[in-house]
Amino acid sequence: MTGSGHSLNFDLHEIGGRAIAAARLGVRGANPIVGAIVVDAAGRILAVGHHRGAGTAHAEADALAQLRADLDSGRIDIRDGNGPADWTMVVTLEPCNHTGRTGPCTHAIRDAGIGTIVYGAQDETGEAAGGAAWLAAQGRRVIAGSDVDPAWAAAARRANHRWFAARAAGRPFTSLHLAQTLDGRIAAPDGTSQWITGPASRHHSHGVRARADAILAGTGTILADDPRLTARLADGTDAHRQPLRVVMGHRDVPADAAVIGDGRFLHVRTRDPREALRELASVGVAHAMIEGGAAIAGAFLAADLIDEIWLYQAPMVLGGGRAVVVDLGIETLASAKRFEYDDVGEGAVQRCGDDVVLHLGPAPAEPAQPKN
Amino acid sequence: MTGSGHSLNFDLHEIGGRAIAAARLGVRGANPIVGAIVVDAAGRILAVGHHRGAGTAHAEADALAQLRADLDSGRIDIRDGNGPADWTMVVTLEPCNHTGRTGPCTHAIRDAGIGTIVYGAQDETGEAAGGAAWLAAQGRRVIAGSDVDPAWAAAARRANHRWFAARAAGRPFTSLHLAQTLDGRIAAPDGTSQWITGPASRHHSHGVRARADAILAGTGTILADDPRLTARLADGTDAHRQPLRVVMGHRDVPADAAVIGDGRFLHVRTRDPREALRELASVGVAHAMIEGGAAIAGAFLAADLIDEIWLYQAPMVLGGGRAVVVDLGIETLASAKRFEYDDVGEGAVQRCGDDVVLHLGPAPAEPAQPKN
Repeated sequence: MTGSGHSLNFDLHEIGGRAIAAARLGVRGANPIVGAIVVDAAGRILAVGHHRGAGTAHAEADALAQLRADLDSGRIDIRDGNGPADWTMVVTLEPCNHTGRTGPCTHAIRDAGIGTIVYGAQDETGEAAGGAAWLAAQGRRVIAGSDVDPAWAAAARRANHRWFAARAAGRPFTSLHLAQTLDGRIAAPDGTSQWITGPASRHHSHGVRARADAILAGTGTILADDPRLTARLADGTDAHRQPLRVVMGHRDVPADAAVIGDGRFLHVRTRDPREALRELASVGVAHAMIEGGAAIAGAFLAADLIDEIWLYQAPMVLGGGRAVVVDLGIETLASAKRFEYDDVGEGAVQRCGDDVVLHLGPAPAEPAQPKN
Repeated sequence: MTGSGHSLNFDLHEIGGRAIAAARLGVRGANPIVGAIVVDAAGRILAVGHHRGAGTAHAEADALAQLRADLDSGRIDIRDGNGPADWTMVVTLEPCNHTGRTGPCTHAIRDAGIGTIVYGAQDETGEAAGGAAWLAAQGRRVIAGSDVDPAWAAAARRANHRWFAARAAGRPFTSLHLAQTLDGRIAAPDGTSQWITGPASRHHSHGVRARADAILAGTGTILADDPRLTARLADGTDAHRQPLRVVMGHRDVPADAAVIGDGRFLHVRTRDPREALRELASVGVAHAMIEGGAAIAGAFLAADLIDEIWLYQAPMVLGGGRAVVVDLGIETLASAKRFEYDDVGEGAVQRCGDDVVLHLGPAPAEPAQPKN
C-alpha cells in the first residue's frame, strides 16, 4: 500500500489500523481520540500509546513515555541502524504544535529523536495546527497518510468526524444524556420519575459530568426537579472537578434553586441550541454535557448538535408518560436522525447495575471512503 | 453446605452453581433451561451438559452422552470405588419421567448406572413430574437440593420462574418481539416503518420465530403491513420449521392476506390475551412469539403474560410517531412493569449489525431467597 515515493518498512494499513484501535481506547470529549505507535527499523512495534482525555498525556507523549521507560530498563536496545532516527511514529492525527494543558507533541517527538512521522487526519483548525510543517522544518521525514494509504487516513479522520465538525463550527463537543424505560419514557403519566435508572447508571453519568466543562439543563427541568447538576462520587460527595452548571431557557431560575449553588452557574436565556453553545464557547467550554429534559434534547438533536449519546436504559415498561425526546419535527422515516453504536472507550453496549448503557455517535453523512 | 444427613463428596454450592451456569447456555421457549453435571467419587467433574431447546437432548442426556464418549475413548477410567454407582449427577431440574420428543431422562440415568442424583427445582406440574420418586424406587439415592442447599435450589427454580408460571397456568411460554428506534418508536408520524432495524436484526428475530410453535400478530398489523409471518433464512427462503401463524382481534382477515399462506393459520377472534393463549394451548402450542403491534404488545404486557422480550434497537431517533407499546393503563412509576436483563443464551446485550439486541425477562415478584 505504499506509493508516491514514500517507502515505509512496515504495512501502514496494519500498523495504522492498530493505531486507530488504540485511539478507540480513549474517551470522547473536549479532545479528539488519538493513537500513536512507534515502529523500529525492522518494522517491529516498540510502543503503542493513546490519549485518555482532556488534561492527560497526548497519544504521542504516551507512546514516547513507554519508549523511554523501555530504553531506561534495557528492554529496548539502540543499535547501529536501529535507533530513534531509524524509527517511525504512526499517529492517527497530525501532532499538535501548541502548549495547552500539556506541552506540544512536536517538541516531544523532536526531543526523542524520532526520524519519521506518519500521520492520519490533518489538524486544519485552530491553534494546534501546523505540527507537520514544524517537524519537517526540523529535518524530520514527515508523511501525510493520505499520500500513502488514503483509506487509512480517511478512517483516522472518521474516528473524530464529530470532533472536527464541532471544532470547525467553533462550538463545544456535546454529550447527550438520556435515561429512560425500555419504551423510551422518562416519567409516568402522573409525573413520577425517580428513579427509572439505578444507582450504577447514575454513577456512570456522574463520571461523564466530571469530564465535561459544562452541564446544561432546561428551565423546565430546573423548575420540576430542582437538580444540583454537580458531578458526584459514588458516596454522594462532590467530585474534585466540577462542570460549569448551565440553565437554558427564557424562564427565570428561582433565587434559591439548587443549581445556583456556589455561583459557578450560568443562565443562557435562549431556546436556540446554537446560541447556547456559542455562549458556552465564549466562556471557554470545550465539552458540554446536555442533561435534558426532552425539549432540550429534542432541540439539540433537531439541530444536529449532539456529538455523542449516553443512553441509560432501565428494564421496565411504562406504556405511557413523558417521552424521552420531543419536537424533532420529523415526519417520515427517511428523515430520522441516524446514529451508530460507538465502541470508543468502555464499549457501545454494557450492563450497568440492573440497566444497560448504550453509547452512540451521529452516523457520518457519507460512508468512509478513500478520498483520492 | 451439606446437612440433613445428606453427605456429598463435593460442594453443592459450587457444582450446583456451575450446573445453573451450564443451563444458562440454553435458550428459553417451550422447554425450561436445564444444566446437568456428573461428579465422580473424588469430587471431580466428569461431564457438563445442558439443554439446547425443544426437540434436542435434555441436559441429563447431553451429560451422559459425553460420559459415554469419554468412557468409550478411555478418557475416563472406571475403577473400583469410582464407577457410575459412586458417581453423582447434579441437575438443576428434577429429571423428567415421560417420553416427549426425547425419551425419559429417568431411564437414561438408570441405564447409565449413576448412583446418586441431586436435583434443584422440583417439577410439580404436568406429565414429566415424578422423576425423583421413580429413580428412588429404582434404588438410586435421590436428594432434593432444597434439603442440602436451599439457596441453590431456589436459584435453580428462579432460573425458570416464568416457565414454571406458564406451565402452572397451562398456557404457552411467550416471547415478545419489539423493534424500535432509540426513543421507542416503531413508525414515523406519516406511518413509514420499513425498515427501522436492519437485516441482521430481522434475521435474528426469524431465528426466534423458527423456534416458536406459533407467531401472533394483531389484525391491525395484518391490515397495515400484510406480513407473511413465516420464519425465513438469511437468503429469504422459508426455514424448515415454521410456526403456526396466528392473528388476534375481532376484525376480519382479508381472504387474500399473505398470512393465510398455506393455511397453517389461525384467527383468534378476541382482544383478551388470556383467551388467545388458551386457544393456542388447546392446539398444542407450547411457545408463542408475540410479534406485535403496539396494542397487542401492550395487552400482553398489561396482563403480565410476557415471559421474555427480544428488543431490537436501531441507532436512530424519530422524536414522534407510533410508540412501541401502548395502553398499559399505568399511572405511576411504582406500577411500571419490571423486567431484568437476561443473559441466557447469547447474552443480555449484543450488537446485531447496526443495531443492538436486548434480551429480558420479567423480574420475579420477590427476590431469590432460601426457602427454609
